[in-house]
Amino acid sequence: MALIVQKFGGTSVGDLDRIRNVAQRVKAETDAGNHVAVVVSAMAGTTNQLVEWARDIGPMHDAREYDTIVATGEQVTVGLLAIALQNLGVDARSWLGWQIPLNTDSIHGAARIEDIDTTKMRERVLAGQVAVVAGFQGIAPDGRIATLGRGGSDTSAVALAAALGAERCDIYTDVDGVYTTDPRTAPKARKLDQITFEEMLELASSGAKVLQTRSVAMAMRHNVNLQVRSSFNDAPGTFVVNEDSIMEQEQISGIAYSPDEAKITIEGLPDHPGIAARVFGQLADNHVNVDMIVQSASTTTQRTDITFSVGRGDAAQAVEIIEKNKDELGYEGVDSNENVTKISVVGTAMRTQPGVAKAMFETLAEKGINLEVISTSEIKISVLIAAEYTELAVRSLHTAFGLDNDI
Amino acid sequence: MALIVQKFGGTSVGDLDRIRNVAQRVKAETDAGNHVAVVVSAMAGTTNQLVEWARDIGPMHDAREYDTIVATGEQVTVGLLAIALQNLGVDARSWLGWQIPLNTDSIHGAARIEDIDTTKMRERVLAGQVAVVAGFQGIAPDGRIATLGRGGSDTSAVALAAALGAERCDIYTDVDGVYTTDPRTAPKARKLDQITFEEMLELASSGAKVLQTRSVAMAMRHNVNLQVRSSFNDAPGTFVVNEDSIMEQEQISGIAYSPDEAKITIEGLPDHPGIAARVFGQLADNHVNVDMIVQSASTTTQRTDITFSVGRGDAAQAVEIIEKNKDELGYEGVDSNENVTKISVVGTAMRTQPGVAKAMFETLAEKGINLEVISTSEIKISVLIAAEYTELAVRSLHTAFGLDNDI
Repeated sequence: MALIVQKFGGTSVGDLDRIRNVAQRVKAETDAGNHVAVVVSAMAGTTNQLVEWARDIGPMHDAREYDTIVATGEQVTVGLLAIALQNLGVDARSWLGWQIPLNTDSIHGAARIEDIDTTKMRERVLAGQVAVVAGFQGIAPDGRIATLGRGGSDTSAVALAAALGAERCDIYTDVDGVYTTDPRTAPKARKLDQITFEEMLELASSGAKVLQTRSVAMAMRHNVNLQVRSSFNDAPGTFVVNEDSIMEQEQISGIAYSPDEAKITIEGLPDHPGIAARVFGQLADNHVNVDMIVQSASTTTQRTDITFSVGRGDAAQAVEIIEKNKDELGYEGVDSNENVTKISVVGTAMRTQPGVAKAMFETLAEKGINLEVISTSEIKISVLIAAEYTELAVRSLHTAFGLDNDI
Repeated sequence: MALIVQKFGGTSVGDLDRIRNVAQRVKAETDAGNHVAVVVSAMAGTTNQLVEWARDIGPMHDAREYDTIVATGEQVTVGLLAIALQNLGVDARSWLGWQIPLNTDSIHGAARIEDIDTTKMRERVLAGQVAVVAGFQGIAPDGRIATLGRGGSDTSAVALAAALGAERCDIYTDVDGVYTTDPRTAPKARKLDQITFEEMLELASSGAKVLQTRSVAMAMRHNVNLQVRSSFNDAPGTFVVNEDSIMEQEQISGIAYSPDEAKITIEGLPDHPGIAARVFGQLADNHVNVDMIVQSASTTTQRTDITFSVGRGDAAQAVEIIEKNKDELGYEGVDSNENVTKISVVGTAMRTQPGVAKAMFETLAEKGINLEVISTSEIKISVLIAAEYTELAVRSLHTAFGLDNDI
């Protein structure tokens, strides 16, 4: 008799038939003798419509009203799913963020969860009632609805699983697990049976869309057993677990790529101490997030080039900031290139098995792919390459690291 | 510096442009130096969609979940209107039923308002902030959302006006006031400048759709000055007021008709005491609402006929109940006719000016219209006639009672 948290995303609850299908999946858990809390998103498309209205009604933006509007999407789904469950003979009731209460900080539109008082809910759930919980929402200190930002339902589910001390948190989605890379890019991609929190975190922050970075970080912090699985079939999914619970570790777990990058190069900067701090300080002051950085010093000219990457949406603003400060920085030229992709190779085994970087660079060199920028972390190596080589790079690395499906 | 409650229905907030238009009307009141609370319905069509989903998801019905679902319609509108007001430079915030709180009883789906704690709202409104209030919703003793039933936004507005001690409650709608009768039926119908609560109540319960019966009764009880006016033009509307504030009283204020009636006749009932009580007791036990009743006794046969009217939706059930009890009641036959309309003539002046009934019956007789059932109250006379005579009856009475527009 375990307590399980299930989470179903917008596609899984996209229409009444799919909501009935979700009800069947919840019932399967209760039939198996488990206590269940199920977290749901808004029906696919609903949130976009609500966001569009909130944006189109006028240029001024009050995040508290925005939250009031967009939180209705999940409110509709929980009511419908509760009724669908009752129709299957399963005792169920809906819980809105303010009813639990799930308390957040006061950053409306992108709130962080502060605590979840599960006293009332736990009592009901342990008495056999399924808790149908609206994801993505909570209540702020001002007594008004706060949303957790896009994709926040994963975070709601993990936080609830932690608060309830759930045995497992199953994230149901439209893919059947975490793959070694995106199967649309590399048809030989393989579903992983398990992956560590750290790897999942690096993959998620490197472009893999299967789980929100934030929810993985929270699961890792609270040691919540996550399973990513399909809401359309019964196959076991991918378990995201602690590193020490995986006996035999593959060298590389996955290859992620992110096309939403831009590369900016500042040429001919005076090569004196503090110049990099000045450049990146100006960008940070303007909330531009810089990802990868390389600096190539030249001893003969006393000049240096700095190349870095930013999200594509920030590129124009970054260039503008640098150009505005041209006199102060004293550089010769600035150049921006949006035709780049970041390719990342991720695996905890990198810690103990050297040679991953060498294998990666050699594989790409053999295909004639130039590395524009390189950055590394303890379990990840990322490179920026010309966008046109994306598929070639992903497939070659997938083969080189022995990830290809046997079929 | 007065406190005004404004209420806008679903058509008035049917799309973003109309919501912006509503914002302008609210601004006009604040520009005039007034404090404003504005109650809104869901965008036209939204509630129907939500009700349909709640019904289609499965045959079981949990009114608490139904309320959770349908209350989202108003939640979206308040957020959008608050943003639209801010865009006009008007300080505004949305209030959901549970945030006020507006406390109801526990009859989910058709809840009654028990009390409204306006402490927090009043403070903000008197400080100059417009309160944008979700109509149709409150919070039940179980801490869950309760809706007031269809048309409940009028009731929300009147209750809020009473609780705030508002100087006036303006009900904005898609017609520009209360008419002597439905202008679609009688083109010579005239807009009334004022009407008494009692008359409005009789008109509303006799088929006039401009205001909910329930909201008029509440306005009368709490002496809230109501104005019915158009949200699409600036013309003054109709004021619904106390009888003693109207100096000169017209004989008849209006003529209402309701096509949603059915006439049922039980023929050859044994004419002994208690037989009517038994018939109508059985109907009441089955929640069938009977409106008008006539009984024609025959001294020669010791048998009597009873004719009565019910809402058309209840007719089949009423006949079924009577047929099930045929042996006990001992009647000869039962007959149901759905091709009937109820025509009502309403006016407080009936109290002091006799002859209204005579004038009404003569007018209809002149046109060859047979009266199937007649019922009267202190300020209303209703008759049931064959449906095909509806327009003729309404127009003839409108002319006979001097209500025709001069134009």
